[in-house]
Formats: sequence, structure tokens, C-alpha cells
Amino acid sequence: MAVPVRSKPSRPGRPVELPLPAAPGASQEEIRRQNLGAVLRFVHVHGPTSRAELTGRLGLNRSTIGALAADLAAAGLVTEEAEAPTSARRAGRPSLVVTPCSGRVYTYALSIEADRLRAARIGLGGRILDLREVRRPPGLAILDAVAPLAGFVRAMQDSAAAGALPIGGAVAVADTTRDAQGRIRIGATDERLGDALRDELATGPGFVTGDMADIAALAEHVRGVAAGIDDLIYLHGDLGVSAGIITGGRLVAGHRGHGGKVGHMVVNPHGLPCGCGSRGCWETEVGESALLRHAGRGPEDRAAVLEVLGAAAGGEPVAGAAVRQVADWLGFGVANLVNVVNPDLVVFGGSLREIYAAGAGEVRRRLDAMALPASREHVQLRAATLGRNAALIGAAELAFEQVLADPLSVGTAE
Amino acid sequence: MAVPVRSKPSRPGRPVELPLPAAPGASQEEIRRQNLGAVLRFVHVHGPTSRAELTGRLGLNRSTIGALAADLAAAGLVTEEAEAPTSARRAGRPSLVVTPCSGRVYTYALSIEADRLRAARIGLGGRILDLREVRRPPGLAILDAVAPLAGFVRAMQDSAAAGALPIGGAVAVADTTRDAQGRIRIGATDERLGDALRDELATGPGFVTGDMADIAALAEHVRGVAAGIDDLIYLHGDLGVSAGIITGGRLVAGHRGHGGKVGHMVVNPHGLPCGCGSRGCWETEVGESALLRHAGRGPEDRAAVLEVLGAAAGGEPVAGAAVRQVADWLGFGVANLVNVVNPDLVVFGGSLREIYAAGAGEVRRRLDAMALPASREHVQLRAATLGRNAALIGAAELAFEQVLADPLSVGTAE
Repeated sequence: MAVPVRSKPSRPGRPVELPLPAAPGASQEEIRRQNLGAVLRFVHVHGPTSRAELTGRLGLNRSTIGALAADLAAAGLVTEEAEAPTSARRAGRPSLVVTPCSGRVYTYALSIEADRLRAARIGLGGRILDLREVRRPPGLAILDAVAPLAGFVRAMQDSAAAGALPIGGAVAVADTTRDAQGRIRIGATDERLGDALRDELATGPGFVTGDMADIAALAEHVRGVAAGIDDLIYLHGDLGVSAGIITGGRLVAGHRGHGGKVGHMVVNPHGLPCGCGSRGCWETEVGESALLRHAGRGPEDRAAVLEVLGAAAGGEPVAGAAVRQVADWLGFGVANLVNVVNPDLVVFGGSLREIYAAGAGEVRRRLDAMALPASREHVQLRAATLGRNAALIGAAELAFEQVLADPLSVGTAE
Repeated sequence: MAVPVRSKPSRPGRPVELPLPAAPGASQEEIRRQNLGAVLRFVHVHGPTSRAELTGRLGLNRSTIGALAADLAAAGLVTEEAEAPTSARRAGRPSLVVTPCSGRVYTYALSIEADRLRAARIGLGGRILDLREVRRPPGLAILDAVAPLAGFVRAMQDSAAAGALPIGGAVAVADTTRDAQGRIRIGATDERLGDALRDELATGPGFVTGDMADIAALAEHVRGVAAGIDDLIYLHGDLGVSAGIITGGRLVAGHRGHGGKVGHMVVNPHGLPCGCGSRGCWETEVGESALLRHAGRGPEDRAAVLEVLGAAAGGEPVAGAAVRQVADWLGFGVANLVNVVNPDLVVFGGSLREIYAAGAGEVRRRLDAMALPASREHVQLRAATLGRNAALIGAAELAFEQVLADPLSVGTAE
């Protein structure tokens, strides 16, 4: 007979780790990096934390945590000070509290949005230290955004405190924009962007680039409505619709980062032509222009969209019908995505946040009619909570990734 | 001015590692486990490998590899013997070759398919040591498959060599089956399956369960057409259509493992009713019944499907038109998935393997008309290569996961 072994079935729903043909072995150096990263990441996400709590939460012993925290403090990434006495604290030596150096260690977070260019200086721990923006003129190409964004970076740098150090940069780029004639242009990315920013600034950190929806998804996952949830779809709507998909705690990036173009799923084979050359794409039914079309309003800008939503909320029948129709198609696409990915949460951001708020009943009804019970019954639908700053907050997270993965690599000690 | 730092942009297209709110620290024990796992995984996937090559491929030093290999040998998981001398080998002491103990260390791989029940004993390294199958009568519930599968396990156990040890088990379950009346039933999973198998066998390893398409995707990723490719969609067709989606080298499992139900994406809102209660689902256009419907053939079984494909290959016009129509809809759904996930590879398995082989031109044409250039230009389309054994090979990989993650946990030493 077989000998009972200690094998146990994996938890259902967890991503299966696939065999990696050449997984690297872990060295002593690698372990130290991982542990330093774990401590820094914890205080970056959760804020000031006592050594005692870090010991419990990270599963390392007290002396290891002490040594790691001291190394991080020596590198200028955290400070340590005695916990404020409280009556609740047990007797004994107070545990030191580890606090990320938000004012001193920061990243540049930039976003090239459909209608705006924005830039922020964001400190370790996710604190927004400085924020600037300017209107993006229709037709402004991605690379033409480099000069104004670099101008923001220089100005923010000049106003930073003495001794403060930028340790990374990232740019979120909207998927869809308008050309000079006002027509919608699809897939507005330019792979030279990161290099162009670096060249323009001559010195300073490199810039990682990413899709707006991916980056906003990351923000909601780390600091927003999706905190603690590892399987989610974030839907970002503006002129178009795109998604950031996170499964098993990881972003589904796809080839060269161009995943999540959910706006170009065809949902209506007999629908309207789409700017991408296909017909009946999801964004022809749920993009801002669909709402304005159904409501018989114009011009195609954000103010008009808000006006329709306001009118619908006020009981205006045509606006109300327009919102319901868009919400129904929103549920249609969500049902398809839920069947494919089966997340625990779908988050609605950008203009879809407001469409969802106004037509949540229609979205859920369509989802229930179309998705399989095993996929739809547990899935939560929620509005995004970080608002218009999601892209900047997420870009900062992307830019912090280097220091979180290898804290001593950035050489910030004074 | 900013101080240049050693930060560098991440490679495009790689999954971004998200901050884990409570990433555990790595202990000495954990590192040893990781390294033992890396060595065992390498020889499991690549076959017998010299210590010298392992040193190069895993980035560990020679003495570490020697110690790890010796530990694995002492645990009865590998053997080590001197490399056969070849004229090409450089002078010096021959490197020991590390070989997985395929005959001695094995898993039970089971599959509950739409029309068959299959069971294999598969040795470390992926060697099929024993294989049995029986027809699955229409209407046989998942839990009613436990008794015949357990019978196979007992019989295979009895015929195993003395000293051979089962270290895990897994079952692949088809998504869709027929009830006793011949109607298609959707989402035929039963979460009690793993426990029921364990109870029936009383002793022996636990059984992990997984979706057929997920498990076949894993097999093609480790040992088939997708080896070395970390972003792929595997499509499995039989009565229905489901997908195993792998991004960044990880399976997109979704909530409780029920992801990849791509057959229930609605592609044709005015299409036929689907067994799931919705209308115009992808599988109503590309499932086996769609092909038979267009070809005017019956009954709905695999023989009839193969007959249509044979007739199409032989130039019979009605059969040819049926294949082209199904292939066109196949391309339609693939385009949607490619826009959403943006993989490097789409693999066609099960009956979709033959549909794709017969209608590759239609699939590619529809994909090119519908998917965004950034998604479609690089994506490769390929037929699966592991054939009907993919589910068993993948189930074995799932069952080996425990020993590969923690080789000394299974206590196989004689």
C-alpha cells in the first residue's frame, strides 16, 4: 500500500506556481535583499510600524528585524524612534517604531491623460509632496509631452527640501487620446517615452512607463478599494475603455505591456465602426461618446458627460435612458471578463466610476443574466476610491519598486 | 540637481511585481528549500543534467550544487553517476550527472473527460509508467467517477515496482459533459472530489483538482509547444470550450480555480441559446455541435466530428464551408482574448486542434481584422503537441508541485 505522506492539496483558487525551467538559486545576499525589502515594503504600505509588530507580521525573529531596520535607517530610508507610551502597552522596554522617510526619499510620478498632463513628487509611504498639471491640447503627441513634463520635474526638484533624493520615476500613459482634428486615436503609446524623458532631464532617475489602467489598478490594489484583494479587474473609462487585470497579486502585463485592451473586445458584431478599424468594440457602447450619443448631447468632452450624468440623477428621462443603456452594455462586457478571468472584484474608475454609480442595477442585472454562477456569485463590483490621483499614486508605486526590491541599491545615505 | 541612481526601467512586457502587504522574510531553511527545489525542478523538466551544467544554469557555486545534489540523492529523489566519457569533453574529473528517479518516485494523474475516465502513474521527470482508461457513460456524475478511478489507482499501485512511492495525486476535470439524456451540462466540477478520492483510497497521497484546460495548459507550458513561453492562452475544445491562461509564467486561476470559462463569452448577442442560460456564447459557435450543425451531420460524438474534418480535407464543399465558418468564429473569440490578455502564443487543443489545423487561414484572417496591431502582430498561433495525454501530463505536474517546492518534505528515503 501507499505510504501516507505529508503532501496536502493546494488551496483552491490560488495561482499554481509553474515549474520554471531555470529558477535561480537563492544566495545569502539575495535573502538579505528579500528581507530588507519585506521590511521596507511593509512600512511603505502600512505606515509607521513597531519592530514588535514587524516581527509578528513578517515571521522573522526579533534580532533579525532589529538588524534589518538598523540597516534601512543607516541607508536613510527609514527612521526609528521609541513608541509613544500608551496605557495599553504592556510593561517592558518600548519597541522602536520604524517610519518611512517620506519627505526625504521620493519618486516622480507622471501621467499623460486623454486631456491633461500631470506630475507629482511622491514620498516613500505614498505621500503626495507636490502636484502640478496642465491641459493636454488635442493632437499633442506622446513625445511632445516630454518637454512640459520635464519642466514640471525640474520645478518640483528645485522646490524639494535640501537632501531629498529622487529614487525613481514612472509615467502612466492613457490608451486613447484625440488627434488635432478631435478624432479618437487608439493605443497612444510610444516606447521611446522613457528614454526621451531621461535624455531631456540629463540626470536623475530613469522612467518606467506603463498603461494608465494597469497603473491605476496597481494604485487601487496597494492603497485603494482593492487593498488585500489579489484577483481583480480595474476598468478605466475615458474616451476609451481599458483594464488593469491583477491575478494572484500580479499584473497581467501581456506582451510588451500591452494587455488589457478590453475596450476592443467585440461585443456587438453589428454595432458601430470603431476607431481601431473593427466594428462593435466594447468602447463604442460604453465610452464617453456612447453616453453622449444616446443622450443626444455634445460636444464630446468631460463637462458634457458630467452634465448627462447630472441630468439622469435629476430624473431627466432621456439622460436616464442613456445611462441605463450604457450601464447595460457595461454589464455585458463585465460578464465576458468575469467568465474569462473570474476575479473577486471589479473596480470601475475614470468615467466608468460615474456610469457605474448611476447604473449599478443595470450592470449587475446584465452580469447575472450572462455570467456563469461560479463566476458571478462571489464577484464584488465597486467604484474606485482614489479618484483622479490613482494614476499618479500607481506610477509612484511602480517607481518605488526598485528600492522595495533591493533597498540598499539606491544609495541614498547622506 | 538630482543624483543619478542605479535605478533602471523594468523590461517591457514583464509582469510587475506588486507590493505584497505582508511578504514573509526568507529564513536559512527557506533558502535551502528553494535551492533543493531549483535543482530537482531542473532535472525534472530537462532530464539528466551534469553538476557542471546545473552550476551554470542555476547560478549557484559548484560546492553548493554538489551538496544539494547529494541531499536529493540521499532522499531517494535523484541518482548521481559519472558522465559517460565523450571525445568532446574537456580533460579533468568527470562531472556527476544528476538523474531524477523516474521509476521510484511517482504521482497519480487522473482525468475526468467529457467521454472518458483516464488514470496514469507518472514518474519524476514526466515519464508515463502506466496508463489506463474506460469510457465515461453520459450522465455519470463527477463523484460517481471516484470509484472507477480509485480502482485504477489501486491496480496501478499493485503493479508498481517494490519500493516505488507515490508522492502526490491530481485530477483534471472537464468543464462540460453530457447528462443521461445527452444534453450538455456546464461547469461540471465538484469541490468534494479531492476529499472523496482520498476517502475512497483510505491511504496514499492527497488529490489536487483542477480544470482540464488549466491543467493541459500547464502540460504544454512545461513539456509541449509552449515550453519557454510565459504568456500564453491554451484553448481546449470538446463539447464546450475553455481556456488555461498563463501570464508571467503563472496560471490565472481565478476565484476558487474557476477561471478561463471563455466558452461563455458572448460573441453573438443574437445567436443561439447556450446551455448556461445565456445566448450566443462562444461555444455555441465553435463547440463540436456547431461544426456538426453547419455540416448537417450527426450524431453528436467525436466520430462524427472527425468525419466532417476528414470530408473537409477531402474537398467535400459542405464540410469545408462548415469548418471555415467555425474557424472564423474561432478567430473572433481569439481576437477578443488577444486584446484582453495579449499573450505571445495561443495554443489550440482538444477538438480545436483539428479545427485550427483545417482552418488556420480563417482564424488568422479574423484575428487580423479584429485585434489591435500591438496585440496581434507578435502573437503566434499553434496546435497543441501533447495530444490526448496533455491532461494527464499536466495533472502529474500539479501533483509534483509539492515535492518540487520542498523536496525533503515528502520523506521518500528508503
